[in-house]
Amino acid sequence: MIVHNHHMADTSSGPVLRVAVAGASGYAGGEILRLLLGHPAYRSGRLEIGALTAGANAGTPLGESQPHLLPLADRVLTETTPEILAGHDIVFLGLPHGQSAVIANALPESTVIIDCGADFRLTDAQVWERYYKTPHAGTWPYGLPELPGGRERLRGATRIAVPGCYPTVSSLALAPAVAAGIVEPTVHIVAVSGTSGAGRKPDVGLLGSEVMGSVRAYGIAGAHRHTPEIAQNLRIAATSAAQGREFDCAGADIAVSFTPVLAPMPRGILATCTAPTHVDLAQARAVYEKAYADEPFVHLLPEGQLPQTGSVLGSNAVTLQVAVDADAGLLVVIGAIDNLTKGTAGAAVQSMNLAVGYEETAGLPTVGVAP
Amino acid sequence: MIVHNHHMADTSSGPVLRVAVAGASGYAGGEILRLLLGHPAYRSGRLEIGALTAGANAGTPLGESQPHLLPLADRVLTETTPEILAGHDIVFLGLPHGQSAVIANALPESTVIIDCGADFRLTDAQVWERYYKTPHAGTWPYGLPELPGGRERLRGATRIAVPGCYPTVSSLALAPAVAAGIVEPTVHIVAVSGTSGAGRKPDVGLLGSEVMGSVRAYGIAGAHRHTPEIAQNLRIAATSAAQGREFDCAGADIAVSFTPVLAPMPRGILATCTAPTHVDLAQARAVYEKAYADEPFVHLLPEGQLPQTGSVLGSNAVTLQVAVDADAGLLVVIGAIDNLTKGTAGAAVQSMNLAVGYEETAGLPTVGVAP
Amino acid sequence: MIVHNHHMADTSSGPVLRVAVAGASGYAGGEILRLLLGHPAYRSGRLEIGALTAGANAGTPLGESQPHLLPLADRVLTETTPEILAGHDIVFLGLPHGQSAVIANALPESTVIIDCGADFRLTDAQVWERYYKTPHAGTWPYGLPELPGGRERLRGATRIAVPGCYPTVSSLALAPAVAAGIVEPTVHIVAVSGTSGAGRKPDVGLLGSEVMGSVRAYGIAGAHRHTPEIAQNLRIAATSAAQGREFDCAGADIAVSFTPVLAPMPRGILATCTAPTHVDLAQARAVYEKAYADEPFVHLLPEGQLPQTGSVLGSNAVTLQVAVDADAGLLVVIGAIDNLTKGTAGAAVQSMNLAVGYEETAGLPTVGVAP
Amino acid sequence: MIVHNHHMADTSSGPVLRVAVAGASGYAGGEILRLLLGHPAYRSGRLEIGALTAGANAGTPLGESQPHLLPLADRVLTETTPEILAGHDIVFLGLPHGQSAVIANALPESTVIIDCGADFRLTDAQVWERYYKTPHAGTWPYGLPELPGGRERLRGATRIAVPGCYPTVSSLALAPAVAAGIVEPTVHIVAVSGTSGAGRKPDVGLLGSEVMGSVRAYGIAGAHRHTPEIAQNLRIAATSAAQGREFDCAGADIAVSFTPVLAPMPRGILATCTAPTHVDLAQARAVYEKAYADEPFVHLLPEGQLPQTGSVLGSNAVTLQVAVDADAGLLVVIGAIDNLTKGTAGAAVQSMNLAVGYEETAGLPTVGVAP
Repeated sequence: MIVHNHHMADTSSGPVLRVAVAGASGYAGGEILRLLLGHPAYRSGRLEIGALTAGANAGTPLGESQPHLLPLADRVLTETTPEILAGHDIVFLGLPHGQSAVIANALPESTVIIDCGADFRLTDAQVWERYYKTPHAGTWPYGLPELPGGRERLRGATRIAVPGCYPTVSSLALAPAVAAGIVEPTVHIVAVSGTSGAGRKPDVGLLGSEVMGSVRAYGIAGAHRHTPEIAQNLRIAATSAAQGREFDCAGADIAVSFTPVLAPMPRGILATCTAPTHVDLAQARAVYEKAYADEPFVHLLPEGQLPQTGSVLGSNAVTLQVAVDADAGLLVVIGAIDNLTKGTAGAAVQSMNLAVGYEETAGLPTVGVAP
Repeated sequence: MIVHNHHMADTSSGPVLRVAVAGASGYAGGEILRLLLGHPAYRSGRLEIGALTAGANAGTPLGESQPHLLPLADRVLTETTPEILAGHDIVFLGLPHGQSAVIANALPESTVIIDCGADFRLTDAQVWERYYKTPHAGTWPYGLPELPGGRERLRGATRIAVPGCYPTVSSLALAPAVAAGIVEPTVHIVAVSGTSGAGRKPDVGLLGSEVMGSVRAYGIAGAHRHTPEIAQNLRIAATSAAQGREFDCAGADIAVSFTPVLAPMPRGILATCTAPTHVDLAQARAVYEKAYADEPFVHLLPEGQLPQTGSVLGSNAVTLQVAVDADAGLLVVIGAIDNLTKGTAGAAVQSMNLAVGYEETAGLPTVGVAP
Repeated sequence: MIVHNHHMADTSSGPVLRVAVAGASGYAGGEILRLLLGHPAYRSGRLEIGALTAGANAGTPLGESQPHLLPLADRVLTETTPEILAGHDIVFLGLPHGQSAVIANALPESTVIIDCGADFRLTDAQVWERYYKTPHAGTWPYGLPELPGGRERLRGATRIAVPGCYPTVSSLALAPAVAAGIVEPTVHIVAVSGTSGAGRKPDVGLLGSEVMGSVRAYGIAGAHRHTPEIAQNLRIAATSAAQGREFDCAGADIAVSFTPVLAPMPRGILATCTAPTHVDLAQARAVYEKAYADEPFVHLLPEGQLPQTGSVLGSNAVTLQVAVDADAGLLVVIGAIDNLTKGTAGAAVQSMNLAVGYEETAGLPTVGVAP
Repeated sequence: MIVHNHHMADTSSGPVLRVAVAGASGYAGGEILRLLLGHPAYRSGRLEIGALTAGANAGTPLGESQPHLLPLADRVLTETTPEILAGHDIVFLGLPHGQSAVIANALPESTVIIDCGADFRLTDAQVWERYYKTPHAGTWPYGLPELPGGRERLRGATRIAVPGCYPTVSSLALAPAVAAGIVEPTVHIVAVSGTSGAGRKPDVGLLGSEVMGSVRAYGIAGAHRHTPEIAQNLRIAATSAAQGREFDCAGADIAVSFTPVLAPMPRGILATCTAPTHVDLAQARAVYEKAYADEPFVHLLPEGQLPQTGSVLGSNAVTLQVAVDADAGLLVVIGAIDNLTKGTAGAAVQSMNLAVGYEETAGLPTVGVAP
């Protein structure tokens, strides 16, 4: 439920914190910087933007790779090394998978490290190794405050794993139903994403000429690495709740069918999620209304209105709609997010706010840029 | 399986046929005319384009509403009346739902009428009335030759109901598995469509400003009218096949979960279809290879390659890929078509070819316009 | 030149002002509300959002027409009448041309009225009548602070005409050269715009199916109504400057060739502007650097970098690049804006800030949402 | 003026010709193959598709890089060497600049070589070297039949340089006015192009995430290599015509201001062209009607209708509109083409038709795929 607070976020006092962004020339890094530039702590001088690092773009001004970040256009990107990242209170990592552990190990435990990569998301080492084909680096507190127990794990944390974009919207769409035990543990998710989710790599298949006017699936039949992350989140939801539910989704039994689809737009994910149910629409809505009544970024739309990714562009909001398909015996939940904001950088900043004691919503828009 | 015939379609002899297109200023009508202009019977003078009719655009040159049809730009649209459509051998109807019956009743039984609307698709009057809220007009031979028995029903037919765009790709994606009995009768379909499927009506929600950069679902939870049409087709597939299958999908038991999603592109549908299975990938591929071995427009892609709508733009081809999600116990089939070509006008011309005795593939591209 | 101020805009004290937005369901109205929701005066409770009015959408919740404005989703739109707009300190008008005068005449002179329509932009009644075919309503202070003398005319103003989107970027691109007398008064402008510039009217030609994948010109050969507005602005620039310039563009002699082009994107204008010159690149850059050294929203890019509309999406920034085509003897200036932000609603809020004494930059992003 | 011939192209007899395509995995090569697959000579077995060669993709099936060319999906790409290209009657080259000469020198003079690259387009070695920074390879007959004398130069030619995409539409838009002497030799061209014109190279700036929702100029102020090619064509037009014209554009005096702009669509170019004139609209239209009365691919639209790239998608047509801006004293010509069809591969096939004696229009669609 989204309402505007008629007071400023309480970031006008306290120590001055210094932030570094590793991977500042990528999409995650750019979005983190966009949000930081609008953060009240930054605007009041309590948060400083320090080192901006990159790989191949090291040595160039940020304005060349991120021309939309005009206030930082002249800042020169440096290399991504522990030495350069040292001396910051908060370090955001927007690096390829597998590079975070080395950086993290070289920085003090007191440094707040917020990793947008996958390295520390999964709890099960075997599952990690099956999907990522590398040794498991460990598990960090998971940056999805809206998940049962999620917020508490993030307050004061100094190591945070930012969720994947698909798991964010899929988990928020299904967790209340799973936690309330109103669905069987057999979920289908088809999530349509903009192209920025694939990152800023020069891949022929991601050229504008290839993606415009075309839609395609990829990583089908459970091959996508976000599949086990969704299952892990739904298990957390399943085990979080009270006894006496109709269906108990706890245990390793949750079957997740996940299909990602690429659509011709830069940003946004729309997830269509279904699971078998016996409840009616009123009961389903009641579950979601209760689950998200106090969440500042999750918004259950009024009946008759459906989520669209364009409405959350650049915003940290999640919009949801629930329906019941009585013929098929299914709960249908549609969710929309901006994959770069709530799906990545917004979650990172939201986690930072919780970690360092800022107001959770500080610097995070709930209003999209539309049309 | 698509191969090019190194001989011309046999349309160079026989009587000269005269074609009318009602609704020539709409998207279906425009696409029918595009295909007819490239049809060998037209190019050899055996097929003539007669009356072109419209609603609000009657009285204007076709070039104003269909500027891409340059060879017909000066043809003036007339009103859609039985009198104007009389005297043609073939009449294509691209009209709003509910208008076809009156036209059809006023034309001779020998006139080949090919209706791109929904009026005569469904066999069950009760189902029709539930979804369309009007009396059932009847049932015509269904213009999907690739469905079991479909081709035979169309040869020599003089009344043809062109399938809906979503049912076309969804049915072709799932029918072989249903017919072979390798899946349980519980199917999930999420189909992402371009905007032309919504027709050429001036609706604020379909403005470019609204749809570009945004994806949204609509008609969720079984509300979309194509849901029962998909179920009807799968029942035909289920009852078509031999005994002794593991699963028998025959009867009214097929549960179809269907979610249409609108994506920012003019054309194309990508359908993600799943159903519970016990078979492995090799068995699944064998079923599809066998089912479509002789189909000129349905193409099972090699392993490792996934359908994309951009590859079938303007083409009558259907591309499919099958996979098995062993963890979730599901067959996953991805299908791509151009909603205006194979999904509407291509099916109409393919049906015409069968109805009047032309080569089935005449005038129908199997090569997309890409990128 | 864009830098971030490390202090909050001075909006935390002073009287509480009440704002109304007429035309709140349109694109201009929606963007004004998006900016107001992020405005420091609103966030500190010194600015209140009062009446939101509409035409056909009156009586519906704002969330139906502006689903991205989640914090205001439950606000019900009312009719656009002087009675409803009375009692506000500031009234934004996002109405069709010709409707502003009646509203303005019915409101007190002390009410700050900021009109996003064209009614009060032109000074020459004859020119108005030639282009708009209606009687001239008058002339209000023009909401382009960056034009010579523009800022002064807006401080304390209670009637403000917000510039057209094309004139904003075209005038800012050419005014420094005209004012400095380094170009002949013969300018060519081809400006490529996103579709939201055409407003939210249900026009078949603006459907997503029509505009995606296609580019077209319209209003060519001087027919577009923004042509005389551009000429008027350049005359102001021409007469603003000192004597002794090589070329004197003052007087009515400025010839403006203006061609608007529609591109498949929701927002943004990229203007390509040329004019005959004898100066070299260093001289040209010096003119622009000097002209915009102190402007908070106009940014001359470093040599080698070219403006793109995606970089200013949702931002009030204007990015410019200048070049000299020595072979053709031309100054070439490329400019990019977001047509809804700096081109409409951002200019409206910037004008409001000047009119009521807020910091000029308050609530106006200089960072785009990219990619 | 586009009309459909009610007879088949005369390609049903004559020797069987064998065609090779070098660069078959690129956009130009793919489009050539798309057109050849629909060419009547191919469909009647008189034209055979032989070697398909590539660079990095050599050794892979064509279906991987060109999934829309289903009938050729299993054909394996080979390396681009003179040995492999030998033994073909016709060789299309879709190679990076600078690679054609070596190939051409190694093949017999009787082989028809049609080069889509720039190497042999320019006649002036000095101009070539200024723009391309390499030695001039020579000059081949220029594949723009609609240019004065163009068709004659192509009949029976065995070496053909296919024009650049921007010069094609710009030259066809301006040549009649220049030839008729109704404009001064000072032309402004701003041409908005889809992204496929940049080729299929994995460049970060061409990623879908970067180009969707954004428009940008590049190669401004005469830096683009197509600038001298346009000037060369207009000089040909200027010197082609009779004496006694008001303006004589002959000689090296033609000043061309050319600005290319990248728009978010895969295909299409819309060129806005202006030049000073004294004539009125009727005179201007008469010049263009006369110039293109017999051209099968160039279409002057009726008054009131403007070209759009979407209408010529996949078509070899050029649509033009002319206007006169009396205030600015300018002729304004808008032209639209598909950059890959008429702008590259269509011109290549049209040139092939002339070179080997097929009907000029054979295999070349004049109907676009819209919407």
